[in-house]
Amino acid sequence: MTRRVSRQITVGGTAVGGGADITVQSMTTAPTDDVGAVSAQILALERAGCDIVRAAIPDEASALALAEIKRRIRIPLVADIHFDYKLALAAIGSGADKIRINPGNIGSRERVREVAAAARDAGIPIRVGVNGGSLERGLRGGLGTEAEALAASALRSCELLESFGFADICVSAKSSDVVATIEAYRLLAARCDYPLHLGVTEAGTEFSGLIRGSAGIGALLADGIGDTLRVSLTADPAREVAAGIELLASLGLRRGGARMISCPTCARCRYDMMKIAREVEERLADYRERDVTVAVMGCAVNGPGEARAADFGIAGGDGMGVLFRHGEIVGSAPEPELVARLFELVDAG
Amino acid sequence: MTRRVSRQITVGGTAVGGGADITVQSMTTAPTDDVGAVSAQILALERAGCDIVRAAIPDEASALALAEIKRRIRIPLVADIHFDYKLALAAIGSGADKIRINPGNIGSRERVREVAAAARDAGIPIRVGVNGGSLERGLRGGLGTEAEALAASALRSCELLESFGFADICVSAKSSDVVATIEAYRLLAARCDYPLHLGVTEAGTEFSGLIRGSAGIGALLADGIGDTLRVSLTADPAREVAAGIELLASLGLRRGGARMISCPTCARCRYDMMKIAREVEERLADYRERDVTVAVMGCAVNGPGEARAADFGIAGGDGMGVLFRHGEIVGSAPEPELVARLFELVDAG
Repeated sequence: MTRRVSRQITVGGTAVGGGADITVQSMTTAPTDDVGAVSAQILALERAGCDIVRAAIPDEASALALAEIKRRIRIPLVADIHFDYKLALAAIGSGADKIRINPGNIGSRERVREVAAAARDAGIPIRVGVNGGSLERGLRGGLGTEAEALAASALRSCELLESFGFADICVSAKSSDVVATIEAYRLLAARCDYPLHLGVTEAGTEFSGLIRGSAGIGALLADGIGDTLRVSLTADPAREVAAGIELLASLGLRRGGARMISCPTCARCRYDMMKIAREVEERLADYRERDVTVAVMGCAVNGPGEARAADFGIAGGDGMGVLFRHGEIVGSAPEPELVARLFELVDAG
Repeated sequence: MTRRVSRQITVGGTAVGGGADITVQSMTTAPTDDVGAVSAQILALERAGCDIVRAAIPDEASALALAEIKRRIRIPLVADIHFDYKLALAAIGSGADKIRINPGNIGSRERVREVAAAARDAGIPIRVGVNGGSLERGLRGGLGTEAEALAASALRSCELLESFGFADICVSAKSSDVVATIEAYRLLAARCDYPLHLGVTEAGTEFSGLIRGSAGIGALLADGIGDTLRVSLTADPAREVAAGIELLASLGLRRGGARMISCPTCARCRYDMMKIAREVEERLADYRERDVTVAVMGCAVNGPGEARAADFGIAGGDGMGVLFRHGEIVGSAPEPELVARLFELVDAG
């Protein structure tokens, strides 16, 4: 796949766009003015592999808290602003590494100019973050499809920032409608060269959110579009990070990391494979530094061959299972010992 | 989106391809010769909304069991055959509504001819189901990319069936590699007009399986490719059905049904929204006959406006929440009563 060529921006030392690795983002849910809780949440997100984190700034106390939060964490911190441009200025003053504004609710041209001037002075980028549900009034319903309105709104804000000499921009245009999201980003990809932050908004719980987010973001990534992403879930933000990493890995856009493949089982399967697959998946979480693919397959007849792309694997039988390496059977073990034997193989490399 | 035009086949009375609604499939995991267990599993899949179900046929007892299973269920039943063409003949004799064969392991030309003749006499279609892990030996590694090998293998089997005058075919070409899967189906879509059965194989547990399946299948569906699908998960098959339905609905490819959108929450959220979102999602499962979108939003400031696309919604505050209809606030309630009040709105229509 050929990736769209975008400009590069830098968020607190992390490159976004211009051929940089695609970064995974999430957002804190603790109150931003509770510095201890938010910092702890961000440190957990760092451990999960989060590249860039965002926090909502609903009030001045939250904006001021950013300075102390920044001291306690390592990854870049983005301030999310709605409505009040003064909070954007305060967040920039507190050391935010990027701010996200929504052109639909940030207010007048003059206020945007002030925010752009402050961001330029601080040397930080701005994300123009349009949402289907909060499009500028003049664009809603008037300009053809939702996708066209999303793209037009985002590009209008980019032009406004450019008119102030500010081009340190990335862009998002998220809808809760997956098709509108895909179309909006395709329009943006064709009409500008800013890096694109991908996401489907209000995507729902982990179940529907994984489906809608993976379909929407995945379709764009598979076409080479996208420089950074967030898989929005009504769930622990660490799950958003795990999902983003898995999505990138599944599309060959992130190398390294342990990966499990497992068949969905069928009538040929005669061991408790779902339990074993969950166990292997959990243990593999400790192997993030390794570039290894492990297979858990339902039957010894088809399994080793079908999973020959995996580095190591197991396939079950009646109370027994086989161990294999690149499709070649290298041993067998009783079912209760299979997982331990599998990880002996993985550890031996 | 414009859908690819494919031929239409009929699977036990259910149309696949040629503009028919995209169907959702799953596969049983109980031993196929345990008629009671398999039939109970299929009835549960029917209740979950499964359109077509497949069962593995690892032995003759399983092939013979199909006749009695068919009497107990309503949806079309597909027999999944590996290696032994005699099991294909036996499954056809037992009344299978379709058979799936894998060209990589079904054997000689003569055996395929016998299977095609039996399927034609029975008036049932054949799925040519290629898997990345079980490509024909001659094609593996020899023909460029995995995607090209998958497509070439599938098309060669189609040509073989055509040479016997058999064209009642659908095709799948699944890989555990999402990118290879997408590319293989794009090649098939360009090179034949058979209906396509979409899927990513060995996709892993519910977490990684939802991500890989939704990204791969979703990218194809978003391009108008695909006539039927299975989201393979190492999980209860009913979850595969729920995932397939959600994926189609999220891409506007299935109308009707209740749908929840919910924001991922942020520091602006001051109520236990994850718990409420799960509760609303569970209760919505009973509203499959309704075409309704319900929103669960984190804050009363942004929520109602951002979720104006929803028919009904709630947004929380400190112990309180508001109820809204198409973005207009229509009431408020203490947090413990919010869900009940929301469903009063939904029930009132």
